[in-house]
Amino acid sequence: MANPLSRTVMVTGSSRGLGLEIVRQLAVADNPPKVIIATCRNPDKATELQALARDHQQIKVIKFDVVDYKSLPSVVEEVKAAVGSLGLNLLVNNAGIMEKCSTQMFGVPLQDLEPQMFRNVLETNTIAPLMLIKALLPQLRVAAAATSGPAGAPRAMVVNISSIMASMGTFLDRHGIYAYRSSKTALNMVTKILAEDPEMKGLLFVAIHPGWVRTDMGTTVAPLRAEDSVSQMLRVVANINEKQNGVLLNYDGSVLPW
Amino acid sequence: MANPLSRTVMVTGSSRGLGLEIVRQLAVADNPPKVIIATCRNPDKATELQALARDHQQIKVIKFDVVDYKSLPSVVEEVKAAVGSLGLNLLVNNAGIMEKCSTQMFGVPLQDLEPQMFRNVLETNTIAPLMLIKALLPQLRVAAAATSGPAGAPRAMVVNISSIMASMGTFLDRHGIYAYRSSKTALNMVTKILAEDPEMKGLLFVAIHPGWVRTDMGTTVAPLRAEDSVSQMLRVVANINEKQNGVLLNYDGSVLPW
Ligand SMILES: NC(=O)c1ccc[n+]([C@@H]2O[C@H](COP(=O)([O-])OP(=O)(O)OC[C@H]3O[C@@H](n4cnc5c(N)ncnc54)[C@H](OP(=O)(O)O)[C@@H]3O)[C@@H](O)[C@H]2O)c1
Ligand SMILES: NC(=O)c1ccc[n+]([C@@H]2O[C@H](COP(=O)([O-])OP(=O)(O)OC[C@H]3O[C@@H](n4cnc5c(N)ncnc54)[C@H](OP(=O)(O)O)[C@@H]3O)[C@@H](O)[C@H]2O)c1
Repeated sequence: MANPLSRTVMVTGSSRGLGLEIVRQLAVADNPPKVIIATCRNPDKATELQALARDHQQIKVIKFDVVDYKSLPSVVEEVKAAVGSLGLNLLVNNAGIMEKCSTQMFGVPLQDLEPQMFRNVLETNTIAPLMLIKALLPQLRVAAAATSGPAGAPRAMVVNISSIMASMGTFLDRHGIYAYRSSKTALNMVTKILAEDPEMKGLLFVAIHPGWVRTDMGTTVAPLRAEDSVSQMLRVVANINEKQNGVLLNYDGSVLPW
Repeated sequence: MANPLSRTVMVTGSSRGLGLEIVRQLAVADNPPKVIIATCRNPDKATELQALARDHQQIKVIKFDVVDYKSLPSVVEEVKAAVGSLGLNLLVNNAGIMEKCSTQMFGVPLQDLEPQMFRNVLETNTIAPLMLIKALLPQLRVAAAATSGPAGAPRAMVVNISSIMASMGTFLDRHGIYAYRSSKTALNMVTKILAEDPEMKGLLFVAIHPGWVRTDMGTTVAPLRAEDSVSQMLRVVANINEKQNGVLLNYDGSVLPW
């Protein structure tokens, strides 16, 4: 498909971490997208994002808590106003959370995992991405219709940021993390169902593992810098093809097992 | 491992459908379990189950709505009283729901899928099974310790009733059903995490697809009778071995892809 990074892009959870870095690299690219919609739940506190937006006119910051579905109609209106007749070429569902405790680096021991933690993680990581996709389908379809390309080939896309921790076929030398891992596995399934849904013709859906990255979630012991994870993911996205519809990709472009 | 059907078994959602049939076949077996705990959320309305319980003393009916976590301590007390020093050899997480609407046989079109439907399905199909497992771990461990078998081999087990619709590696000629399919995929991941968790030594966890079965959920057009699905699943469970820990099995015992 045509490079989905060349026109209009929206990123959720862009206050910090990978979301902020995606927005930054898109903005400073040689050939930046015409519109970069950077959403975050507390724009007032997102000082780095705000500074970036001051330097780059393409960036439009929109306040959006991904689990606040009541706000979706107005968020969609703001997106429409920002992208105009171009529609939305690329949505990156990046906002995500992991259950936490004070006694281990990742996740919560099973005996301390409460239903409300599990619910919150599923709400943010699984339900919210699908609700946003559903709300933005008209804008994604406008972009698909407005973008040239071979007939039948997808021309707008959704990237769901997933995790290798959600890959059941990959042995992880780290146990537990029940809520986060299963929420991302469910997100992978959502991605696959969307990719196979005949009503989604013209759109492409992928899940991507960003690598283990030094962010607040990834912690300081992670091997990858956000810069390196994001530059590789953006290269993968720029070169995406139909065969990758509905798969779980690694940040280097290889396919991960489900 | 030793046949987990020979001692104590608990089945959730046994008012009708597959759960009721599992209880029935266990009760009428040549060598029935010593205790069959049949839980359902409305025992008063579960007339078939009550009739069965009158005929078979091993069956103990316990009122349990799987999403009512406040009731877990008292349910666990009732289980303890019923199984005594045997502990619980087999827990079958069978209770499950699918999102529904009036316009299609299964699931809900994406445009009509509301967050609350998605939440309810995840609560019943994903969160509730894990919360019950967590609450019953002590009883499962008692059974594992009380059951003879080769050292290190699992001696008590949990069967999570999943679905081929949750298998991302299986192409389905049926699209949509976002909430149900992703909730069962998440349940598969929960099953896998439990199976790999070093704290779960001595216990075995599997997910099983019962086939497409004529029940209220499966509808009358399903090819399999509940009797045939359950007799095959019980044969698979009776012959389970360690290599099947943490996999998704078909009702005929073959392994399904994730
Ligand atoms: N870092 C890794 O190693 C790694 C590995 C695999 C996958 N991932 C995935 O990559 C994505 C980004 O993670 P990260 O490492 O950048 O994590 P992070 O540094 O913790 O950042 C998480 C971002 O998500 C936002 N967010 C959380 N809940 C939100 C909500 N309800 N509404 C709006 N925004 C919300 C946060 O906003 P606030 O600032 O408002 O809290 C923040 O911008 C996540 O989906 C994560 O699961 C990360
Ligand atoms: N039938 C199929 O073709 C098929 C295929 C794949 C997987 N499965 C799975 O097999 C399992 C059994 O399904 P089925 O076909 O027997 O469906 P069913 O006929 O609709 O029966 C569902 C059972 O789950 C119970 N249940 C639902 N929510 C509950 C709750 N919160 N607390 C306690 N019980 C609850 C129902 O109790 P009430 O009577 O109180 O409502 C009923 O006993 C499910 O996990 C389903 O996903 C079925």
